[in-house]
Amino acid sequence: MSALEDLLTCLRFPSVSTDSKHRPDVRACAEWLMNKLSGMGLTAALHETPGHPILVAKNRHLPGRRTVLLYGHYDVQPAEPLNEWKSPAFEPTLRGGRIFCRGSTDNKGQLIAHVSGIAETLAREGDLPVNLTILFEGEEEIGSPNLKPFLEAHRDELACDVVAISDTGMVGEGVGTFTYGLRGIACMEVKVHGPSIDLHSGIFGGAVANPATMAARLVSSLHDDEGRVLIPGFYDGVRDLQDWERSAWSSLGDGDAETLSLTGSPALFGEPGYTERERRWARPTAEVNGIGGGYQGEGSKTVIAREAFFKLSFRLVPDQDPERVLDLAETHLRAKAPPSVRLEIKRGHTGMAYLMDPHSPLGQAAQRALQETFGGNIALIREGGSIPIVQAFKDVLKADTLLLGLALPDCQAHAPNENFPVANLEAGIRLNQALLRELAA
Amino acid sequence: MSALEDLLTCLRFPSVSTDSKHRPDVRACAEWLMNKLSGMGLTAALHETPGHPILVAKNRHLPGRRTVLLYGHYDVQPAEPLNEWKSPAFEPTLRGGRIFCRGSTDNKGQLIAHVSGIAETLAREGDLPVNLTILFEGEEEIGSPNLKPFLEAHRDELACDVVAISDTGMVGEGVGTFTYGLRGIACMEVKVHGPSIDLHSGIFGGAVANPATMAARLVSSLHDDEGRVLIPGFYDGVRDLQDWERSAWSSLGDGDAETLSLTGSPALFGEPGYTERERRWARPTAEVNGIGGGYQGEGSKTVIAREAFFKLSFRLVPDQDPERVLDLAETHLRAKAPPSVRLEIKRGHTGMAYLMDPHSPLGQAAQRALQETFGGNIALIREGGSIPIVQAFKDVLKADTLLLGLALPDCQAHAPNENFPVANLEAGIRLNQALLRELAA
Repeated sequence: MSALEDLLTCLRFPSVSTDSKHRPDVRACAEWLMNKLSGMGLTAALHETPGHPILVAKNRHLPGRRTVLLYGHYDVQPAEPLNEWKSPAFEPTLRGGRIFCRGSTDNKGQLIAHVSGIAETLAREGDLPVNLTILFEGEEEIGSPNLKPFLEAHRDELACDVVAISDTGMVGEGVGTFTYGLRGIACMEVKVHGPSIDLHSGIFGGAVANPATMAARLVSSLHDDEGRVLIPGFYDGVRDLQDWERSAWSSLGDGDAETLSLTGSPALFGEPGYTERERRWARPTAEVNGIGGGYQGEGSKTVIAREAFFKLSFRLVPDQDPERVLDLAETHLRAKAPPSVRLEIKRGHTGMAYLMDPHSPLGQAAQRALQETFGGNIALIREGGSIPIVQAFKDVLKADTLLLGLALPDCQAHAPNENFPVANLEAGIRLNQALLRELAA
Repeated sequence: MSALEDLLTCLRFPSVSTDSKHRPDVRACAEWLMNKLSGMGLTAALHETPGHPILVAKNRHLPGRRTVLLYGHYDVQPAEPLNEWKSPAFEPTLRGGRIFCRGSTDNKGQLIAHVSGIAETLAREGDLPVNLTILFEGEEEIGSPNLKPFLEAHRDELACDVVAISDTGMVGEGVGTFTYGLRGIACMEVKVHGPSIDLHSGIFGGAVANPATMAARLVSSLHDDEGRVLIPGFYDGVRDLQDWERSAWSSLGDGDAETLSLTGSPALFGEPGYTERERRWARPTAEVNGIGGGYQGEGSKTVIAREAFFKLSFRLVPDQDPERVLDLAETHLRAKAPPSVRLEIKRGHTGMAYLMDPHSPLGQAAQRALQETFGGNIALIREGGSIPIVQAFKDVLKADTLLLGLALPDCQAHAPNENFPVANLEAGIRLNQALLRELAA
């Protein structure tokens, strides 16, 4: 099977984008892919960026056909810690029907599935049923710093009706999974300043406000005892879950047991009135990502630290506006802080939540493609994280993205012993062909 | 003046107890002091400990006289940062009537004042009016690890009616200050455990409890908005302030302005119904000395950390029992923690609050000595910190301690440019003689 051979070849490039000593490997992987696509009859070119090259390839675009942009990335995470790998990180090894190698699931296995699907169609039919634009980048694992500027500079060349990406997860083996929503994000860091110097907590304790205590009190003002966010106006504009979503998600099995097992938490916790999947996928949160102040070492030191900090990120859902959420949070925190401390608030990055209608014509095409590929067993889900490139496609190209992932929960993306089932490579090849066919219809 | 010469000599020993390279200097200082006391006609001996030696000296003890134990320490804090000193840290330099040198105020200036007072009395009268036991240690700045075992091993030899120490502060220039109370302490560290691994706050945020958030909520449960401690039973047994104390302390000037200026805090904060001095000296507190969890670096990282911690110290007043306060705090925190996190609570060191009656016969003797020395201008105060050796004297020798300090608020103990006024050296010599005379009466 040449798809498997291609994947093994692609995996042997240690294309670690974050490590400058792998820069030649990243380029070699891009060049191999370009030659592969050219050899299939596509016009392909590498575009230089300040970082790693972006590969664009197209069939001949004909008027009157849908234009589909297929995105993937050929860079991978670092393989460390190397001693936890059961076989060498960059030597693909087959065990139990799975290919073990860094990048096998994220994203080379899914990318090569699409490439192989296209190759088969081209070999069989001489053309594809749609106008296809392939966009493979080499910087996804370092935050795609050059992707949005590239989209903006090549807006016309990359114009499309829809984007397709296989870089997300499946809810389980053999279940075609369509991710139609992602949460947005808004970040903020708060410093709580008190005395101008660290104070002896015996000599001064009781007379002045303790910044660590005040930071904790501000954090605790963000939620009620059950986990609802208490910032006034925070839930304004939050779109209700649809009945079909609640019912579709509840049919996915026991989410509580799965999340308890994945996280190892003593018990679940969160906003009442919603299942854990609903809370993770469709409800906004306020999370403390870091808190610190005062003595951090072993034992005790009787100090009142002059400052403390906490870092917040809000996960957002349609139709919350990230900047407005940061406004509301800042107003709330400043109102709660007593005059005995001074707050310094720094805003971080933001991103809109993403939601497409899986019952729209494009969404239905994706559903049909998944049904054909997986024998009718499909799941419609949202995910709790944020994928900035999806927002970039929406912002610049005005196109929705079909997220049709092929990674299983135990494929170990980003971790040692990353793997990808050969069955998913085969399913991905079928999915590519079904998807382009359905999108053409 | 030989007292000044003796002090300059004593100061030139860099007797930094925490630094092993200064071990010979610490011993040299102890030996110099021993020879000094022997030369004055006292029997003096160095006692070895696992750390630095303890110096004990006595006059001839006669039946029917009060026995006074005079405590001091000849070790000093490190001098770093050296570049902030205006003259060399271990070369005593006179400027504006003050002696600048590491150890000048803490504690060599105050110690040499007593030694010189004793020398003058012995030279003039051939004996002292009391049975005197001098106990000078070389480990005060590292927590006196060998003092209590030494007291226990030499209980009979060190038996006394009262202890006198000059190692605290004066409320202002020329105001003889009698510290008759100290707060106690009870320390505790709390770890809040949640998931078994750090989690992605996008993927899992909303489904499980965030240990950093829960740590903050537990800390915020310790106080009401105005600073009262909310642990049930915490204030049980707290002795009310006496009317004379409130009135004596309010006559000491504007404590609010002084504390604002010393701390640089934007505003004072604390338990309503008490002045800032009353809160620092006679009311118990719950302070966070450290809090931490999650990402501590620059920028943001969207993580739910698997654990967070906070370190607490309670400052206690008579008649709170430190172990009972830790019991109450633990019960309170465990009741407040939801089942979605697990608490690990580790108890730290404890110490009883100390309070003697300044109007007792011994206290009145100390007051008279201060009045004679400072021309009637004296202050009766408590302090907010804890001095463990005072508790050790109480526990082992069953003796109260007269804390008659000679350090001014701007003498920079523990800081660069530590200094001691020559006038305070002279006052200390008079104080020693007046004190022994009054205690003899």
